[in-house]
Amino acid sequence: MDASRTSGGQFLDPSHFLQLQFAMSEKSGDAVDLGHHLSELAKRRKLSPLKGLQKITPKPGMVMLASGTPNPGYFPFERISVEALGPDAFAAAATTVNTTGFSWLRSLFNRTRTTHFAIPRYPAAKGDASLAEALQYGPATGLKMTQEFIRKFVERVYAPAYNNWTTLVDVGNTEGWSRCVLTFCNPGDVFLTDEWTYPSALALADPYQVSPVPVTMDAEGMSISALRELLASWDENARGTGRPHVLYTVSVGQNPCGMTTSLDRKKAIYEVCVEYDILIIEDDPYYFLQEGTYVRKSDRQGSRTLGGDDFIRSLTPSYLSVDYQGRVIRLETFSKVVAPGSRLGFFVCNSLFAERLERCGETATHSPSGFTQGLVVQLLANHWGIDNYLIWLQGLRTQYTARRDTIVDSLLENFEVSMAYSDGSSYLRGLPVYSCFPHAKSSLSRSRNGKQIGRVLSVVPPTAGLFLWVTLHFDALPPPQPSGNPDDPNDHETRLWLRIADAGVLVGPGTFFAAIPSAANPNEGHYRIAFSDAPLETLAEAMSTFSVVVHMYFEEMLTA
Amino acid sequence: MDASRTSGGQFLDPSHFLQLQFAMSEKSGDAVDLGHHLSELAKRRKLSPLKGLQKITPKPGMVMLASGTPNPGYFPFERISVEALGPDAFAAAATTVNTTGFSWLRSLFNRTRTTHFAIPRYPAAKGDASLAEALQYGPATGLKMTQEFIRKFVERVYAPAYNNWTTLVDVGNTEGWSRCVLTFCNPGDVFLTDEWTYPSALALADPYQVSPVPVTMDAEGMSISALRELLASWDENARGTGRPHVLYTVSVGQNPCGMTTSLDRKKAIYEVCVEYDILIIEDDPYYFLQEGTYVRKSDRQGSRTLGGDDFIRSLTPSYLSVDYQGRVIRLETFSKVVAPGSRLGFFVCNSLFAERLERCGETATHSPSGFTQGLVVQLLANHWGIDNYLIWLQGLRTQYTARRDTIVDSLLENFEVSMAYSDGSSYLRGLPVYSCFPHAKSSLSRSRNGKQIGRVLSVVPPTAGLFLWVTLHFDALPPPQPSGNPDDPNDHETRLWLRIADAGVLVGPGTFFAAIPSAANPNEGHYRIAFSDAPLETLAEAMSTFSVVVHMYFEEMLTA
Repeated sequence: MDASRTSGGQFLDPSHFLQLQFAMSEKSGDAVDLGHHLSELAKRRKLSPLKGLQKITPKPGMVMLASGTPNPGYFPFERISVEALGPDAFAAAATTVNTTGFSWLRSLFNRTRTTHFAIPRYPAAKGDASLAEALQYGPATGLKMTQEFIRKFVERVYAPAYNNWTTLVDVGNTEGWSRCVLTFCNPGDVFLTDEWTYPSALALADPYQVSPVPVTMDAEGMSISALRELLASWDENARGTGRPHVLYTVSVGQNPCGMTTSLDRKKAIYEVCVEYDILIIEDDPYYFLQEGTYVRKSDRQGSRTLGGDDFIRSLTPSYLSVDYQGRVIRLETFSKVVAPGSRLGFFVCNSLFAERLERCGETATHSPSGFTQGLVVQLLANHWGIDNYLIWLQGLRTQYTARRDTIVDSLLENFEVSMAYSDGSSYLRGLPVYSCFPHAKSSLSRSRNGKQIGRVLSVVPPTAGLFLWVTLHFDALPPPQPSGNPDDPNDHETRLWLRIADAGVLVGPGTFFAAIPSAANPNEGHYRIAFSDAPLETLAEAMSTFSVVVHMYFEEMLTA
Repeated sequence: MDASRTSGGQFLDPSHFLQLQFAMSEKSGDAVDLGHHLSELAKRRKLSPLKGLQKITPKPGMVMLASGTPNPGYFPFERISVEALGPDAFAAAATTVNTTGFSWLRSLFNRTRTTHFAIPRYPAAKGDASLAEALQYGPATGLKMTQEFIRKFVERVYAPAYNNWTTLVDVGNTEGWSRCVLTFCNPGDVFLTDEWTYPSALALADPYQVSPVPVTMDAEGMSISALRELLASWDENARGTGRPHVLYTVSVGQNPCGMTTSLDRKKAIYEVCVEYDILIIEDDPYYFLQEGTYVRKSDRQGSRTLGGDDFIRSLTPSYLSVDYQGRVIRLETFSKVVAPGSRLGFFVCNSLFAERLERCGETATHSPSGFTQGLVVQLLANHWGIDNYLIWLQGLRTQYTARRDTIVDSLLENFEVSMAYSDGSSYLRGLPVYSCFPHAKSSLSRSRNGKQIGRVLSVVPPTAGLFLWVTLHFDALPPPQPSGNPDDPNDHETRLWLRIADAGVLVGPGTFFAAIPSAANPNEGHYRIAFSDAPLETLAEAMSTFSVVVHMYFEEMLTA
């Protein structure tokens, strides 16, 4: 065990600090002008004509009869009161949330504090939060308190590497990426992405005739050499389109594969992007859920709560920390760290892009919900404060680490396991891979028809996020026989997936996540398994069921 | 006075009921297929690949590990409690909201009931609202309780004239119209709109290269003959684009002019739209704020609270009630009847369009805020119920009627007034117009330089909504003299607007609302004056200030 491991399974690599300090010392000035990346649509957007009213500087006592704001006395809500968990609700690693039976009740008693607050219709004192303000029409940039909180948080946590960075609210990362596609891509454009990627990101871009170009992955996500080769050898005529100028990546807790791109790798990818003039869209919902390298149960040590700045330093930094030119657009959301129903997120990017992204939003969503802004920002900014919010985030990381450990432990327990660093040519290259062979007690464990049964599946435990990515190895199996019904699936991945569902466990089939589904290797199958929701014991049972069905499927296929 | 006037200044025209019944008896079947109206973009949208999971019907007890929903135990919110006004808070016409001084406190005592409720983390009983559900990822169609409430409300209030109408949530009418532009218009398309219209609707469409074609207005909004002539004489070559197939209109409380399109007119426009195969986008935020025909103070009678169905019948019906083919897309919002910060609205349209509009939304906003859905729908659906919500809406109408009456009264008091039905060629044609001449006590009231001073301004009191539209007549004035500074405005409308602002009253300049600003008549100026927010006495004072400045400006121009 590395002695520097201190929290939530996360390794604190001292070289990170040096690199981060170096990156930050490069903070030399403002963003460079990247206006040529704007789409034709983005360039055509004008200021709303009603903004012309801003020519007039309101004087004290001015009667404002220009816009149709209802009198806040007409809002039916008088007062909204909140009872919330304390920020240290999950700080103790021993407390794991469980929604079944009494275990939830039990966990109530482990909490040290509860946060109470209320938002009245009118502010109790000048500057206080009020429903009159939160529920009124507000700026597309969000309420003042939202803006201030986000700005302070970004400054503290990411310390962007140039001066005039800007933040802008949106209604979550899906909407954030949607604005990016409209603002940076013209029809016919292509964008770089990981070879396994978030399918909704592709589905969103597709109708705008903006398509993905997958980049080969390795242990740390996108491969530098693959990226460089792809760009250097780009043939505009053969490809039918110019070289991509946008890179979309989930670099922390990669979706679906779960790996995290190191600071070194980020710096190297950033330099390629500088060389080829590419924007980086960093979709980063799992940043604070960095669970670190998986350690087998027998070798695992406890974690302890870190101070806010130590917690920040324990996290692999964002692309923002190396972005000295302002070519990163970070998408962050409260969905995974507060609640998905918040529909609140934000951009961090250069001010020129922020202005265009604001124009894009003001004529669509207008602004995030005032209920959300009032309740979420009041809780985080005014009742917890950033230091306590960092304790909350650290508590969540502890929770997700326990979940990641449980699901990986449970899967490995059901197989004979060997760990090695893969030298394969796939995205696994260089990763610590747990190869899973049939369980010794299973009839599969013997050789069959004179053929030795090799590994059935392999797994690379995630280092962040919500998902376990499992690779099935179907090499030993005969090709699936057609059932006679053309509606039936004719590949092992889908057939096995349906069997697992039949046994009561629904996982995500791997093909959903392929940037180019037709490029998938038919001898491999994948499943994305979310460990974010079910109680720990259910996760363990589900992995046992999963493993039994995998054993049975292989047995049946080899017997047939 | 017409004896049928019963509530909130609204005339109940018995022929409306017959027409409505006739329209409803035409409800003969399902929507016709209007799929050819979809834009190329809309046709390209695919089902999200993750929806493929829906192939699997979840069984009881199935462990769901396919999607990354966080465990609701990780949401920091334990319980949100609400204190709200009772639904009858504004039912008595005498109660008017006032945010200054003690008048607001006073109005507290007029309320008969307060509504209290709380949403806990977990449902108290099966089917109850909970934060666990509201704050989780939810369907793009909204929470089940939201869907049910909206469907019941639409059925009760609008009774759409075909069977398979569908409702779909959005985050307000701006976003609703944004989805319509993307779903029905290709770049280069034009759409029909009122000659004076909501500028943000144009600003939204403009960067998509979708532009307005203004239709002349009269007393009831869009003129049938002008619409028919425009379409019949459409010259594709001269116009450079095909005949418009989308009509955008705010037909109740027209923004900015304030008139309301009658059911007869709606039926006639609808028939033109059937003939020319045009979709009607009905942007209708002010539907429940139908203040009816303005009656001068001396002739005014009190209003009384109607039962829910009588209230519904007192409202000029929506285009939905004549839409037997499914070519109306209604946009409705909670912004003006609950609070703008809700960012919650909905479509009512045919099911084919609803499906495409859902696809458009699911890859952008995803769904409205769960805080909003939880709090707003719990209040309206479960704690008030539709009957009480109708009382709330009627109370708001009473409030806005009092506001409309106050602002018009105050304006007219400051001039010598004559009322007549206009026979002008402008949008005023056929309307009861109040012509305002200089006040008898003003030095302006005399003839000047041998020239008789005619009407200074005219006003057509709005019948619904939040805005008073005032027309200034500059005919008698010499053209504005250039100031020498090229940045200074060189038209009377802007110069007078700045003077009014200088005197402490900010109104909206008319040019902002012209569908084609360059087409405006230089001898006329307009201001849109919002009466939705300021206390009644402030509205009265502001109109006095406004009138003084108008008198002074004319005086000065005629003396110079």
